[in-house]
Amino acid sequence: MSQTYNVAVVGATGLVGEAMIELLESRGFPIENLYPLGSDNSAGGVVYFNGKSRRVKNVADFDFSQVQIALFAAGADVAAQYAPVAVEAGAVVIDNSSCFRDEPEVPLIVPEVNPERIHDHCGIIANPNCSTIQMLVAVAPIYRSAGIRRINVATYQSVSGGGRKAVEELARQTALLLNGQDIDVQVFPKQMAFNVLPQIDGFDDNGYTHEEMKMVNETRKILEDDDIGVNPTCVRVPVFFGHSEAVHIETREQISALEVREMLQMAPGVEVIDEAVDGGWATPVTEATGKDAVFVSRIREDISSENGIDMWVVSDNLRKGAALNAVQIAELLVQAGL
Amino acid sequence: MSQTYNVAVVGATGLVGEAMIELLESRGFPIENLYPLGSDNSAGGVVYFNGKSRRVKNVADFDFSQVQIALFAAGADVAAQYAPVAVEAGAVVIDNSSCFRDEPEVPLIVPEVNPERIHDHCGIIANPNCSTIQMLVAVAPIYRSAGIRRINVATYQSVSGGGRKAVEELARQTALLLNGQDIDVQVFPKQMAFNVLPQIDGFDDNGYTHEEMKMVNETRKILEDDDIGVNPTCVRVPVFFGHSEAVHIETREQISALEVREMLQMAPGVEVIDEAVDGGWATPVTEATGKDAVFVSRIREDISSENGIDMWVVSDNLRKGAALNAVQIAELLVQAGL
Repeated sequence: MSQTYNVAVVGATGLVGEAMIELLESRGFPIENLYPLGSDNSAGGVVYFNGKSRRVKNVADFDFSQVQIALFAAGADVAAQYAPVAVEAGAVVIDNSSCFRDEPEVPLIVPEVNPERIHDHCGIIANPNCSTIQMLVAVAPIYRSAGIRRINVATYQSVSGGGRKAVEELARQTALLLNGQDIDVQVFPKQMAFNVLPQIDGFDDNGYTHEEMKMVNETRKILEDDDIGVNPTCVRVPVFFGHSEAVHIETREQISALEVREMLQMAPGVEVIDEAVDGGWATPVTEATGKDAVFVSRIREDISSENGIDMWVVSDNLRKGAALNAVQIAELLVQAGL
Repeated sequence: MSQTYNVAVVGATGLVGEAMIELLESRGFPIENLYPLGSDNSAGGVVYFNGKSRRVKNVADFDFSQVQIALFAAGADVAAQYAPVAVEAGAVVIDNSSCFRDEPEVPLIVPEVNPERIHDHCGIIANPNCSTIQMLVAVAPIYRSAGIRRINVATYQSVSGGGRKAVEELARQTALLLNGQDIDVQVFPKQMAFNVLPQIDGFDDNGYTHEEMKMVNETRKILEDDDIGVNPTCVRVPVFFGHSEAVHIETREQISALEVREMLQMAPGVEVIDEAVDGGWATPVTEATGKDAVFVSRIREDISSENGIDMWVVSDNLRKGAALNAVQIAELLVQAGL
């Protein structure tokens, strides 16, 4: 009989934790026991796995020596506090927060891009930012073939990236506005319904936001190339699920849109939907939500530069952008014998 | 007593026509008689101007020799049919459609950018595309100071750019979804509510859309510089009013974010809202809708290139992007003696 594992999911009742548990089940991850964990607020609640209910335990009281793998789907503060505890107890941590991503000894893995890094961990593996993951799944094949000098990217990020309260705020504001009532603003700095907000996370000194700098630094780390320039503008849009990106790439060698299209049609994790007809492209709602793939559309040669390629990249931020990528890392771990 | 003019507004009951009439009144345009005109569908309806109701007449039956200025806020087909009739009758046409924009003898005017072109008309002056207008109001001062090699721009365009039926479709789909009901899709190729659609207008052979190529060609014509590269991705977002743009500029000479900020604070038609704090930027809903200015935020030096400047540009697409720009052209015409 093949080996099975005890797995903890920290932040089990959040949007990403929920999706992780659903994916562990649907992908048939070899689980012996699942331990859903949460903070004081969520402990005592119930999640369902393989048809059975499991009570959410308080992460503060949990004995991590019971598990081989701990999936962290909580904030950076929770990861900072409990990931070292889990590692100390012998578990391998896959952390979805930004807490350890910049640490040189922590691999930052997108399984379609740099799976070989799975062998380098010292107990913690970091899951990249959602916007970085989907961009790199689409961009890495081009990088390998033609090299990349620079990436300009403007994002259209859904509110679910901000967690359950952000989803509720968009729904609440929308309903109030359609009923002609005044809205309140709690999660986002300004009205989110029927509006776009050009800020995600706080500001760096250079005028970029932390979310934008994550795309810069994580791209360099994952591709192991500090010469790549990345210039992101990250924007929240009134979409519930699924991030989109207008990606403009400047390659080192010239490459045609046709070559890119053919390359991406063969690329792991990518689905190309790209016809120059009405609706011949992917959107968050109609293609990406609930799907595993990174969808690529609008592939074309940049008419403003010699070596430019434009494309439109869409993916479910809770799945490939978070939970799925983490579960795929867990699958790599199991293949590698932890 | 100062001179007054007879003015026709073609497409008077559309979103842009309505805004034109409101602006002619609020800006105190020297009007003797206003003639609201429409198609068979809207003729017979009523619009209000200076507190009095005016019946909408059928453009097909109108004698344009009665007016000195005809503002066209209808589609390219209506402009193609009736603008020559109006010119023949002696009126000067200001056309908001794309019909004449590419004609070499037709000036394409953004009053803050190239007002001097008012003297060159042969009866028709074209109003640029909404996305082009707001981008150029923000970009022209930088162009004059440091030169521009290329512009990469990703747009976040509101549904009102698609007219009244597009506004109604977003409202209807949103209400149906919030009530758990199935939606229908009529105006947009896919669900617009809580979604983003990376196509506006049809496709060119080069993979860009017509809307994107308008930004390319109109920018070159207005700045009178065919060497400028423009690389747009135009995207419809579920916002009712106000277009936003993530603009990335590659200048010929280096220029700092500080210089750009100071320059734009002095620039005509621009309002800079740019603080590196939560909410320290403009959005369609909270700043731009109903206002005249082009709002510029997120001004920063591109960390991926030597001569790069990024900024976020927001404006009311029905006002500065359409009706206001047309009325400003009419004001220039009056100053120039028609």
